Amino acid sequence: MTGAPLAIGLDLGGTQLRAALVSRSGEVLKRTAVATAASAGPEAVVGQLAEVAREIAEGVALAEIAGVGISAPGPLDAVNGRIIWAPTLAGFRDVPIAALLAQRLGLPVRLENDGIAAALGEWRFGAGRALSNLAYVTVSTGIGGGVVCDGRVLRGRRGMAGHVGHMTIVEDGDICSCGNSGCWEAYASGTAFTRRARLRATDAADTLLGEDMEAIDARRVFEAAARGDPLAGELVAEEADYLGIGIANLLHLYSPDIVIIGGGMANGFGEMQEGIARRVQRSAMPAFRDVPVVRAELGDNSGLIGAAAMVFGEG
Amino acid sequence: MTGAPLAIGLDLGGTQLRAALVSRSGEVLKRTAVATAASAGPEAVVGQLAEVAREIAEGVALAEIAGVGISAPGPLDAVNGRIIWAPTLAGFRDVPIAALLAQRLGLPVRLENDGIAAALGEWRFGAGRALSNLAYVTVSTGIGGGVVCDGRVLRGRRGMAGHVGHMTIVEDGDICSCGNSGCWEAYASGTAFTRRARLRATDAADTLLGEDMEAIDARRVFEAAARGDPLAGELVAEEADYLGIGIANLLHLYSPDIVIIGGGMANGFGEMQEGIARRVQRSAMPAFRDVPVVRAELGDNSGLIGAAAMVFGEG
Repeated sequence: MTGAPLAIGLDLGGTQLRAALVSRSGEVLKRTAVATAASAGPEAVVGQLAEVAREIAEGVALAEIAGVGISAPGPLDAVNGRIIWAPTLAGFRDVPIAALLAQRLGLPVRLENDGIAAALGEWRFGAGRALSNLAYVTVSTGIGGGVVCDGRVLRGRRGMAGHVGHMTIVEDGDICSCGNSGCWEAYASGTAFTRRARLRATDAADTLLGEDMEAIDARRVFEAAARGDPLAGELVAEEADYLGIGIANLLHLYSPDIVIIGGGMANGFGEMQEGIARRVQRSAMPAFRDVPVVRAELGDNSGLIGAAAMVFGEG
Repeated sequence: MTGAPLAIGLDLGGTQLRAALVSRSGEVLKRTAVATAASAGPEAVVGQLAEVAREIAEGVALAEIAGVGISAPGPLDAVNGRIIWAPTLAGFRDVPIAALLAQRLGLPVRLENDGIAAALGEWRFGAGRALSNLAYVTVSTGIGGGVVCDGRVLRGRRGMAGHVGHMTIVEDGDICSCGNSGCWEAYASGTAFTRRARLRATDAADTLLGEDMEAIDARRVFEAAARGDPLAGELVAEEADYLGIGIANLLHLYSPDIVIIGGGMANGFGEMQEGIARRVQRSAMPAFRDVPVVRAELGDNSGLIGAAAMVFGEG
């Protein structure tokens, strides 16, 4: 890819499709978003990607743009730029999305797993700057991740390393979205957190969470916990504990210098930090206990900025 | 390190201290072993290491030897050549073993975690030859491991990546040797396997395992299973299942091209292979299910040969 000063980062989510024009220093110069045509099939979605890329690059000379990076849900084959399967996007089975988009735009396109893209963003421009080893975990509907080890982004076979959400932490435990049982995601994702909160609220006599189960979401639980609601406090402590179990696993497996938590659930990081630390102290061997666990610095933009960083050859 | 054609590999175990003279092509030219003076303290053990190294190098010109590689139990700091703590070796707390041995021998010395050293041996000269990604798991008294990803040995902070035995697979489960509960090691190590066999045999009316609990070891269980003993068969199936849970985790986390099983329990690999495969099919996402799980090719020597390979700059 060229030495051009700008890159386009695209974040293909099941709900939103976001785009940003990013500089080599990680600055977001311009951004846009549209609702993903998630049920319209690959061709329509590739069309949307091309459209937002053109929109974001309007008024910029093509020679200024080094290329396009796409952050997308996995499993995908980053090496060959193909989405293998995307449960949240209809018809996405073995779609050569990088090649399709490159044809439409006349720009080089790279594809990366959303977890890895976000890890790259945090590594280059966020909480992991200047470190050689980091584990990034995004906790939202599901749990994804990306890992930097010995100064390089881990990719592995077909670029599929870092599917941290699908490690079993509870033998024969709750069923996960992937079909397996007992995955970390089945216990510590935002979905699992909200499900527990709704279940528990129906039995509770006196809680700020209210009685309308459908209205209970992660934010409401964190807010209620901050205001001293006992049930909410219990739920947050439990969530922190589940997160801590998986984080301790990551410490032993990857030996990072830092663990970075992103995704929607990171909004409650302050409430959970102590509980996470307590579980890590309990579950990690002494040599791993002093590794900091922090909140992502780039917030929502880790993946977008990381996707652009890929284009600059930063990972 | 020099271009000399030979290296000395040392394998520092809690029971045995083994040494080998290894060629650049991974051939073991000469080997020896002594009982480790495990309770005599670091100075005595360093003395033993120097002695076996000298013995193995007798009659070889110093210029022919590129250096010494030590494979030792973790956690250790491979970058600085220090053993941080070795539960099986008395007094081993923050011992700069590489420097101490280098002083005595006048040769460059490198230290590596036994799991990583064995992974390196299997990568360069064993079951993982020519692959870019592998996860090596040694299953014996405990469970250790080492990982190659994107053509490089994973080290991480302080060289401590790949402590695969201490990931939690059963929330608040059995207590592990590390103090945590529910670790993979607490369920799938040879120690756990033998403990289950002894417990179960006392209740069994009719089993080839016999009634002398102390005499029951892993080998006896595998043999009885091969001869159709129902209890032994059940124990082996259970062990294979526990191994499979952890292996499925490693697939998601590292995305290897192959998973290699070494250590004493690999002697029963043939008996367990089908059960491991069944669990992996169940617990791994489809994109990870076709990764082969095989037995280590270098057997007992993976670590010794890997330690020597390190000296040649092979990892």
